[in-house]
Amino acid sequence: MSQKVNPYQVEGKINYDKLVKEFGVKKITPEILKEIEKMAGELHPYLRRGIFFAYRDLKKVLDEYKKGNKFFLYTGRAPSGPIHLGHISVWLFMKWIQEKFGVEVWFQFPDEEKFLFKKDANWEEIQKWLHENMLDVIALGFDPKKTHFLIDTKHAGIMYPEAIKVAKKITFSSIKAAFGFSDSSNIGSIFYTAMQTVPTFLPNILKKEKRPCLIPLGIDQDVHFRLSRDVVEKLGYQKPAIIHAKFMPPLTGIEGKMSSSSPDSAILLTDSPGEVKRKINKYAFSGGRDTAEEHRKHGGNVEVDVACQWLKYFEEDDKKLEKIYKDYREGKLLSGEVKKILIDKINEFLAEHQKRRKNAGKLIDKFVYKI
Amino acid sequence: MSQKVNPYQVEGKINYDKLVKEFGVKKITPEILKEIEKMAGELHPYLRRGIFFAYRDLKKVLDEYKKGNKFFLYTGRAPSGPIHLGHISVWLFMKWIQEKFGVEVWFQFPDEEKFLFKKDANWEEIQKWLHENMLDVIALGFDPKKTHFLIDTKHAGIMYPEAIKVAKKITFSSIKAAFGFSDSSNIGSIFYTAMQTVPTFLPNILKKEKRPCLIPLGIDQDVHFRLSRDVVEKLGYQKPAIIHAKFMPPLTGIEGKMSSSSPDSAILLTDSPGEVKRKINKYAFSGGRDTAEEHRKHGGNVEVDVACQWLKYFEEDDKKLEKIYKDYREGKLLSGEVKKILIDKINEFLAEHQKRRKNAGKLIDKFVYKI
Repeated sequence: MSQKVNPYQVEGKINYDKLVKEFGVKKITPEILKEIEKMAGELHPYLRRGIFFAYRDLKKVLDEYKKGNKFFLYTGRAPSGPIHLGHISVWLFMKWIQEKFGVEVWFQFPDEEKFLFKKDANWEEIQKWLHENMLDVIALGFDPKKTHFLIDTKHAGIMYPEAIKVAKKITFSSIKAAFGFSDSSNIGSIFYTAMQTVPTFLPNILKKEKRPCLIPLGIDQDVHFRLSRDVVEKLGYQKPAIIHAKFMPPLTGIEGKMSSSSPDSAILLTDSPGEVKRKINKYAFSGGRDTAEEHRKHGGNVEVDVACQWLKYFEEDDKKLEKIYKDYREGKLLSGEVKKILIDKINEFLAEHQKRRKNAGKLIDKFVYKI
Repeated sequence: MSQKVNPYQVEGKINYDKLVKEFGVKKITPEILKEIEKMAGELHPYLRRGIFFAYRDLKKVLDEYKKGNKFFLYTGRAPSGPIHLGHISVWLFMKWIQEKFGVEVWFQFPDEEKFLFKKDANWEEIQKWLHENMLDVIALGFDPKKTHFLIDTKHAGIMYPEAIKVAKKITFSSIKAAFGFSDSSNIGSIFYTAMQTVPTFLPNILKKEKRPCLIPLGIDQDVHFRLSRDVVEKLGYQKPAIIHAKFMPPLTGIEGKMSSSSPDSAILLTDSPGEVKRKINKYAFSGGRDTAEEHRKHGGNVEVDVACQWLKYFEEDDKKLEKIYKDYREGKLLSGEVKKILIDKINEFLAEHQKRRKNAGKLIDKFVYKI
């Protein structure tokens, strides 16, 4: 299948080098990694392993940081369903940046997005997911003193007045081309990209500062900001910088992107240990051979084995990961055994997460930005 | 010039019967007038004189009122310049309805509209006019206990969450057709009609009521609600009713509509007595003859004489107005003399208005809806 990568569709085996060219972004170089390592004291596994692999204007942000002007981080989550493991890699990485660089996180919950884009989306349902999603984000462990939730319909009072300034500079033709809108698109979905642009500069208005904005995101979301980076600059703010992540593959195979709408392909943050075990054993695409005997003899294919690929996200120790890959390639480890390692790792992570999630409700007030 | 009547353009000599047919509205009948007279105890001159001449669903609103369910009034003003006499006829009429029917007035100030629709509109300038325009509306004498200002960018927190529900039900094609948008329209202007629809039902949400909405407006604004009446109904609210006014003609001739962008055609609420006198004497299009002698002999044309036409708005006494018209037609009154009558009437009105306007600043807080 040929690759399709946009905010509404990720299909096919992704050729990331091709995306870098198509999107006009830059690849993260060993020099940049070294610089980050020097500043942070270490490198996050997602940087070491090339999961975050591309950027726009990242160097500028690092240069300003060195001069003493801290950036702020911005990302978002459009609530309409449960959070799965594919969502959180970007956020875990942000948490690490927050800790290492001591920066603020602005987390947008555009609760109108899915409502406007999905025909059958129900308002009350989305508000329920908004609450559930906030619990998960809080449970990931962001610093409540340095993390601010912006909920589009709750913060519209401060967001809409800025969104119209963005909107005035974007014509229908330009978003038609970027997002594939047509004349039958609803006028809310057409306006939405203006609301999504606002958090790239709103913190500077609210706090009377001039900090650069850094957006970690899955590369499929890049188009949102490709369009608005120029607009933001025209409004007199610095263009937001971006750092792009590859997709965590779906459980069912390494093509495309994990999705909560096909539950077989994803593990939810609320899944029980039993469910995690069942899903991985049943659905995780295997890079192994047809029989254990064959596997022992010829070894497995790490590149297509989803359990191996997922361990990139959950086994922090490079040496351990290397050993698993080596053993799998040489047939010393069977697919079922790698799956077992992954199941334990994920269940360990989820046990901790679910424990923190139980107390997250009390913290919502601390995270939601006070107008 | 052939007639053009839409929110962005009013040109030519208006054939109101043709508009009634084109727009699919109904003409106000003597029976309806009788009914209103019975309920209000009298008829406002603008009703007696056919200035308010057409409607949508007005009978339903009156029927519900008789059953004890009061309607609320909704109108608006997009700030971008000074208020002129052409603006206030609708509002003076609303004030009368408020007094006679004891109803609430919801007054929207969509301070983003002109910003989005006028290329050169400046945000700070518009905020200045917003303040000035509020002073004028307050000075007209609405009941502060029953009148609520909704300012789009200040009340976006309560308006945007409802606007997206409206927006989801309006496609770009449908507003393209209605307003003449194109692909080069900005996405804020495309969304705007959703914000304008919100006050037709928002008061019912805020006050947990089920009152019908009645919108008095110049017939050029009808298209905004032609589109959204159906949407509002789909959202589970009653379709707003509308009562339509004819245009007060510009000073310079009875075609088209008064406009503050051509200052010769309009008298502003802040004009001094001297300015009023100068503008009317210099610019008011005359229905008189070339010489006083001719005029005495053949009489003048009331229908095209702007001073005569404006007196419909400012001389409340039918008998006096009739006498002026009769004398003008018969040549007993010269154009200059009618102008003198008009100048005195307007200056009397403005003296009172400007006095109240000086104290209006203190009242803004009472009028702006408290979130």
